[in-house]
Amino acid sequence: MTQSFTLAQLAETLGLDYQGDGDLCLEGVSTLEKAGPHALTFLANPSYKKFLASTKAGAVILSPGHAQTYPHAALISDNPYATWAKALTLMHPLAHPAPGVAATACIDPSAEIHPTAAISDHCVVGANCKIGARVILGPHSIVEANAEIAADSRLVARVFVGHDCQLGQRTIVHPGVVIGADGFGVALDNGHWQKVPQLGRVVFGDDCEIGANTTIDRGALGDTILGNDVRIDNQVQIAHNVCIGDHTAIAGCVGIAGSTTIGSYCMIAGASGIGGHLTITDQVIITAMSTVVSSINSPGTYGSGIPAQPHQRWKRVLARLAKLDDWIGRLKKIEKGSSD
Amino acid sequence: MTQSFTLAQLAETLGLDYQGDGDLCLEGVSTLEKAGPHALTFLANPSYKKFLASTKAGAVILSPGHAQTYPHAALISDNPYATWAKALTLMHPLAHPAPGVAATACIDPSAEIHPTAAISDHCVVGANCKIGARVILGPHSIVEANAEIAADSRLVARVFVGHDCQLGQRTIVHPGVVIGADGFGVALDNGHWQKVPQLGRVVFGDDCEIGANTTIDRGALGDTILGNDVRIDNQVQIAHNVCIGDHTAIAGCVGIAGSTTIGSYCMIAGASGIGGHLTITDQVIITAMSTVVSSINSPGTYGSGIPAQPHQRWKRVLARLAKLDDWIGRLKKIEKGSSD
Amino acid sequence: MTQSFTLAQLAETLGLDYQGDGDLCLEGVSTLEKAGPHALTFLANPSYKKFLASTKAGAVILSPGHAQTYPHAALISDNPYATWAKALTLMHPLAHPAPGVAATACIDPSAEIHPTAAISDHCVVGANCKIGARVILGPHSIVEANAEIAADSRLVARVFVGHDCQLGQRTIVHPGVVIGADGFGVALDNGHWQKVPQLGRVVFGDDCEIGANTTIDRGALGDTILGNDVRIDNQVQIAHNVCIGDHTAIAGCVGIAGSTTIGSYCMIAGASGIGGHLTITDQVIITAMSTVVSSINSPGTYGSGIPAQPHQRWKRVLARLAKLDDWIGRLKKIEKGSSD
Repeated sequence: MTQSFTLAQLAETLGLDYQGDGDLCLEGVSTLEKAGPHALTFLANPSYKKFLASTKAGAVILSPGHAQTYPHAALISDNPYATWAKALTLMHPLAHPAPGVAATACIDPSAEIHPTAAISDHCVVGANCKIGARVILGPHSIVEANAEIAADSRLVARVFVGHDCQLGQRTIVHPGVVIGADGFGVALDNGHWQKVPQLGRVVFGDDCEIGANTTIDRGALGDTILGNDVRIDNQVQIAHNVCIGDHTAIAGCVGIAGSTTIGSYCMIAGASGIGGHLTITDQVIITAMSTVVSSINSPGTYGSGIPAQPHQRWKRVLARLAKLDDWIGRLKKIEKGSSD
Repeated sequence: MTQSFTLAQLAETLGLDYQGDGDLCLEGVSTLEKAGPHALTFLANPSYKKFLASTKAGAVILSPGHAQTYPHAALISDNPYATWAKALTLMHPLAHPAPGVAATACIDPSAEIHPTAAISDHCVVGANCKIGARVILGPHSIVEANAEIAADSRLVARVFVGHDCQLGQRTIVHPGVVIGADGFGVALDNGHWQKVPQLGRVVFGDDCEIGANTTIDRGALGDTILGNDVRIDNQVQIAHNVCIGDHTAIAGCVGIAGSTTIGSYCMIAGASGIGGHLTITDQVIITAMSTVVSSINSPGTYGSGIPAQPHQRWKRVLARLAKLDDWIGRLKKIEKGSSD
Repeated sequence: MTQSFTLAQLAETLGLDYQGDGDLCLEGVSTLEKAGPHALTFLANPSYKKFLASTKAGAVILSPGHAQTYPHAALISDNPYATWAKALTLMHPLAHPAPGVAATACIDPSAEIHPTAAISDHCVVGANCKIGARVILGPHSIVEANAEIAADSRLVARVFVGHDCQLGQRTIVHPGVVIGADGFGVALDNGHWQKVPQLGRVVFGDDCEIGANTTIDRGALGDTILGNDVRIDNQVQIAHNVCIGDHTAIAGCVGIAGSTTIGSYCMIAGASGIGGHLTITDQVIITAMSTVVSSINSPGTYGSGIPAQPHQRWKRVLARLAKLDDWIGRLKKIEKGSSD
């Protein structure tokens, strides 16, 4: 669904200045390259600046600097990408399902479902759950006993929320996510593993978003905690008693082991692994496929990923690595010789 | 379910020559080691050749070279493994469920379900979907509004296909797969993350197969695209606007970041990570657990995985690595000394 | 749900000695730091010993050595962590749902469901399945034809068990797990991939636990096998025909390629990758994010993970690595010079 706006309406709604014809009707969105005369587009990444001169877009979201030299209609923003995100949200509003509970949903009579919430087909909601105002539980979602989903949140489809867990307001959870499964707790007892019951919860702040098939385990004794505005991509694994600070973003396939605390405004790139019982301070960036095995106390960028290279060259590096000891021994011998 | 064939029938159906008794009834399949007198088996991997002399198999699929020296019944193929795959497909046909829609499925009245399609228990099919001829939607599959599943495809069970996505013909999707969840798009706006609506789709060619719990995000503006005959293993993460060429195969646990294009006939081994906005040309092989951070323009094998070794030895390598700078400084000093 | 015990009752039930007031009522559990006068806690990790002197806990599970110097109530155990696990299990018994089949479950008439089993909402159980005594199938579980779930097992929710697979007794499977999807088997045939039908099963021993969104593929010809007491964390990928020995524990995000055999009492740390067709002997420990590409014949610890470090320092190491050949050439030249 697309909602049309005139350029002037959009500027007013977003609290921005514009240049060009305010009555221009923007009926859709596109890229600089492909936009037609009634499409809105944007320029944020400098590598796309080359397309600005020739774009046929109805209007472009531009920084003040770019707008100055652009002779056509523009929406002027200090942060074009964020403005783009907001304009898309206005022009492509989410189709909100009608409130109510689908006939095929199984709702425990003790659950409190807000009358404005929409519970889709085949959902299961357990005893004493609280489902807030305007919440959407997409098809096949399971919310176990005593869990709470705060106002304006959306479980897109097939999400599992374990008993007693709490999701904040305006949370988005994508299909296949498992929140509040048991953490991996076992104790070796005479050669057999004894399961350690996992008694904690998962507790979210507001405005979090969780990507498809991500798993977030409940705490062992205390809780696993996500702060406000935590953004997590697909297939991320968050173990029991992890604590993630406000505004931290975690890319796909990252794994975080138990009881680790991550600060706010951190950015963890894809497929990195973070060990257990660590503390990562605020504003730490971890590069892709890195292995974090000790705490990080200073903001900054850290990593240990190795760029792929032609196989024969990499095999040679590995062979050299394996013999590093030899070479260093030979170097020491020379040093000893030259000092003789 | 096993379907019996005589050796001659199988040879004729597969368009191959055979040697030995064409009336021999093949009632099942097994390995060279375990096969009995009515079982079909095959030899493809040379390391199993040692079992050929003593096999009790009814018939063996062999290359012409091996067949020449094998005195018993054989099906002769230039590609024994592919012939094996085809013979298995004939002898173990998929049990096709009866066409029709299960009473527990929730189908929007505007969806077009081909009369030969089978929609299993608890499926949810949204408005305006098109479900093609002989398609199987296994139990608990969700197909959102406007999505299309072309003829002869099979969602094994509990698959999610997001709105507007398109799957080609003869596609197989395994349980837990999420196709068309939102990509990971956020813009920082005054210290808060602003969600970037994801407006694109996922579009498949024909003959793709997607492994269990894999996730393929919808495009941000344009589409995420899989070509024809793309084969993807379990727990692979494919981000928004990735484009994967025909006949490319991707092993388990691989992650591919946004807007990367991968050519045709590529093979990506397990648990590798491929960065965003890259271009990988055709016929590239990536070895296991490699980190690809730049585009690859020439066919060939690339990697950066490090083979595990005894812990003490590896710790020593790491210690040496950390001091590489020192050693190189000392080497330079010696060079300087010897040139004095 | 919490079940209260007196200290003496707990000691007797667990077969342990205690010190202090046996009539003390233990009504809950907590950490050393937070425990109140009616809470049980424990000391296992030496780094928490500092909290022992000041704890307000009703009773502490302690080793004999610690108990000797602790002047208050204690439960005395040679293995405090295992005792803690058992005490938690007693004090927090699982709320067992009432036996019977939910009205929304779809059960094939030929399936054998034990009268003490509990089949929750929206489950699907196929033809000829056997569901044992006291088994719990949580909501949205799918058990395909001919599969067997032995007594006292629990599929927490939304688990998929493929046709013909067998789970042992007292098995716990967490949400989103896929057991018995097809393995990744394809044969290249004139430039197209030909699917190799996957005819084997997945067969578990007793007392296994499988974490959320883990996938375990069925065997190609033979079976994929888990022994007894195998403990697997979240998002682990186990390919076709893998065989895992008794009491082996595998942490999150590990991937194991096809036909690899892992011994008993192994411990595989998070996000490691193990190649195909390997044999890992008993009592092998693999450290986090390691890449195992050859068989391991001796017990011990192995790895190849690289600790993350400040980005600039790591870039320098990478630059040095790339030039290792040069440096070694220069070293050789010096050696040659000094021997002249």
